[in-house]
Amino acid sequence: MRKILVIGAGKSASYLIKYLLEKSESENLIVIVGDVNFSHAKKLTNEHDNAQAIMLDIHDRQSRQSAIQNCDIVVSMLPARFHIEVAKDCVAFNKNMVTASYISEEMHKLDKAARDKGLIFMNEIGVDPGIDHMSAMQVIDRIRSKGGKVILFESFTGGLVAPESDNNLWHYKFTWNPRNVVVAGQGGAAKFLQEGTYKYIPYNRLFRRTEFLDVEGYGRFEAYANRDSLKYQSAYGLDNAKTLYRGTMRRVGFSRAWNMFVQLGMTDDEYTIEDSENMSYRDFVNAFLPYSPTDSVELKFRHALKIDQDDIVWDKLIELDIFSSKKMVNLKNATPAEILQKILMEKWTLDAHEKDMIVMYHKFGYELDGKKHQIDSTMVTIGEDQTYTAMAKTVGLPVAIATLAILNEKITTPGVQMPITKEVYEPILKELENYGIAFKETEVPYLGYNPLNL
Amino acid sequence: MRKILVIGAGKSASYLIKYLLEKSESENLIVIVGDVNFSHAKKLTNEHDNAQAIMLDIHDRQSRQSAIQNCDIVVSMLPARFHIEVAKDCVAFNKNMVTASYISEEMHKLDKAARDKGLIFMNEIGVDPGIDHMSAMQVIDRIRSKGGKVILFESFTGGLVAPESDNNLWHYKFTWNPRNVVVAGQGGAAKFLQEGTYKYIPYNRLFRRTEFLDVEGYGRFEAYANRDSLKYQSAYGLDNAKTLYRGTMRRVGFSRAWNMFVQLGMTDDEYTIEDSENMSYRDFVNAFLPYSPTDSVELKFRHALKIDQDDIVWDKLIELDIFSSKKMVNLKNATPAEILQKILMEKWTLDAHEKDMIVMYHKFGYELDGKKHQIDSTMVTIGEDQTYTAMAKTVGLPVAIATLAILNEKITTPGVQMPITKEVYEPILKELENYGIAFKETEVPYLGYNPLNL
Repeated sequence: MRKILVIGAGKSASYLIKYLLEKSESENLIVIVGDVNFSHAKKLTNEHDNAQAIMLDIHDRQSRQSAIQNCDIVVSMLPARFHIEVAKDCVAFNKNMVTASYISEEMHKLDKAARDKGLIFMNEIGVDPGIDHMSAMQVIDRIRSKGGKVILFESFTGGLVAPESDNNLWHYKFTWNPRNVVVAGQGGAAKFLQEGTYKYIPYNRLFRRTEFLDVEGYGRFEAYANRDSLKYQSAYGLDNAKTLYRGTMRRVGFSRAWNMFVQLGMTDDEYTIEDSENMSYRDFVNAFLPYSPTDSVELKFRHALKIDQDDIVWDKLIELDIFSSKKMVNLKNATPAEILQKILMEKWTLDAHEKDMIVMYHKFGYELDGKKHQIDSTMVTIGEDQTYTAMAKTVGLPVAIATLAILNEKITTPGVQMPITKEVYEPILKELENYGIAFKETEVPYLGYNPLNL
Repeated sequence: MRKILVIGAGKSASYLIKYLLEKSESENLIVIVGDVNFSHAKKLTNEHDNAQAIMLDIHDRQSRQSAIQNCDIVVSMLPARFHIEVAKDCVAFNKNMVTASYISEEMHKLDKAARDKGLIFMNEIGVDPGIDHMSAMQVIDRIRSKGGKVILFESFTGGLVAPESDNNLWHYKFTWNPRNVVVAGQGGAAKFLQEGTYKYIPYNRLFRRTEFLDVEGYGRFEAYANRDSLKYQSAYGLDNAKTLYRGTMRRVGFSRAWNMFVQLGMTDDEYTIEDSENMSYRDFVNAFLPYSPTDSVELKFRHALKIDQDDIVWDKLIELDIFSSKKMVNLKNATPAEILQKILMEKWTLDAHEKDMIVMYHKFGYELDGKKHQIDSTMVTIGEDQTYTAMAKTVGLPVAIATLAILNEKITTPGVQMPITKEVYEPILKELENYGIAFKETEVPYLGYNPLNL
């Protein structure tokens, strides 16, 4: 029996553990699930014969190291900042490791040590980052093998609410860490490349510079630019591409409404509001508007953002009860972002039976035999409920499949890496298809941003 | 003869040195001016009999310490970050010290050591900070001595161009460090108190939430909020004030126009623009606008910021040649702020004969005998030329006067401090009046922000 240690039994681990346990008989696996909250581990192992739930506090060095020594491969589903201690132990005790997180500076530094010991540290193998890397590189490699040259790459991902559970005016609910949604786009201008021209968007304009995207059967979406679209240029080998754009997808109209919070400063996470504990929602909104002894918070809000009487964004605000003088913030020393998150969570939390949805959209423009071509590739995955979510599926399945592939020596190249080589993405994408995670490709006329070639 | 060491012979040292040399005969002073650039020191000492220019690199410990040991008091006119090394030497060699800069965390830590040795480390004694502290505390102390209670304090300062040299559409030229002007307001929301309500303004709204101020004989100004208006609440003893607001003054219309740069992200100093060296001004502007093979940069700009055909802000842009495709940025790896600064410096630099202006405006609201009162206090100083500027005068004179007062033991309280006690401000403000730096006070009806007391 081979032992897989999964550290962290949070929201994203459900499908991962389910998949591994389903394979445990045929593949001779023991799945050990460790969490600081034992009941979480217990719930996801579900008394399975080949599973073992353990209490594991990764800050307790001794129990962490003994758990790692006792297994054949480690999957860390911890928050990203905690991977590094686990990774160092994996180097020390010669264990391979898998995470769904971005490769941190510290993780990157372990590359040589991992290589020297022949260890595989696979990262960014969930969804955005993960499935996006693999599905993009598969098409890019195919274009190249035909002799084509990639001139445009755009990639969009959204974690959204499924159409059947989409019942608010924002067409949005939190399907993942709400804090990340509230502060999304902060911390630096977005940067991308369009037809050879570098473009920069500051945070305060980000949600007004959206693009539309149509996904067959699912209607229209919009996307705003992700921080640095040039990040993968060298990793993907796209040095000749004249257009590089990565974006986050929302339903049309979300960004224009969200921009109201951005403009007023309600998404700021850098300072705390005085006496936040005793504020009503209305007081909170009023803190970002000019003082007046007479004018209403509503009229000051409309005036500050020039919102017409009949503008739909107003109904979106009302839906959130944001002008309520009865509902209290009840958070001590809270930042604007924390307060806004609380207000939103009241309305944007999915019920246990409701479903989330992951949407991905890639555009590949390329030149072949002197002509320009374009492939659009889309993927939609819908969750089952709030335990087996689309997010948990698209994060957990590729992690699980990669773990098994490493254990079975189908992936053998050592080092700290992300899944962009054929050795890695081919078997994983193939297995994902068996679980309904599949991309639909269409050849479309190449347009780019300069269709008349002016 | 008493020896005064002035370190740093930059722009702000002209009046300071002139004042000390004028007093050198009657006060038995030798003024030693040290600068890493010897010609600067030479120029300001101007072969005066009681002056001595020396080459002084403060990073050279030995020559710094020997210069400090050789004097009776040290005036540091260095950039703020360099004061601390000088201050530590002053502790070691038992010398008093004067600076015009904000008290840094590190400087604050020397307070005990200074007190233990009976040393005076006077800081924030230029203009904003400096004259604002002194002139405000004088009025506040007077109100208190009559039994009044301060309920409102607002303070505004502007470094501007004098009316006779005001010949561009922005009514603005750089009279001090241009970089500070370009990045002004960044790094956190502005925070202030109005009628007991805390208000927060994010950077992207800062220049649209201005107030008007009229100064007799000088017309109308506008002001935008300074970072943290609550900073001096305890230092000034204003814990009961219901309105606290500090602002920066500009001529009316500046902020609305400046906001265009803020909105598009052209004031960002946190990242560098790709290939900035080879960009035209037009390319620079275009980097913040959507890509289009056909639409002009001008129309994209107007559309992005909804600028009407006949809006004066457009003429302000044209005046800067910002749409020029001939003028080149010529700066390697430059941030947006650096590039914008270069463009502005071409048009906003004062000629040698042109004059700057310092304007200060305080409002004090107070309760006395059950009634509300208000005192408005204004000060305007106009420079002579680009060597003897109003900025150099209002920074340098109080520093010089304080230095002499410490030397003559008129100021005796030891410690790291700012000029908020009567012992300090009274003699200095009196002497400043002899040099034309005087406040004009008017009793006005108390209005506050809730005139009808609703």
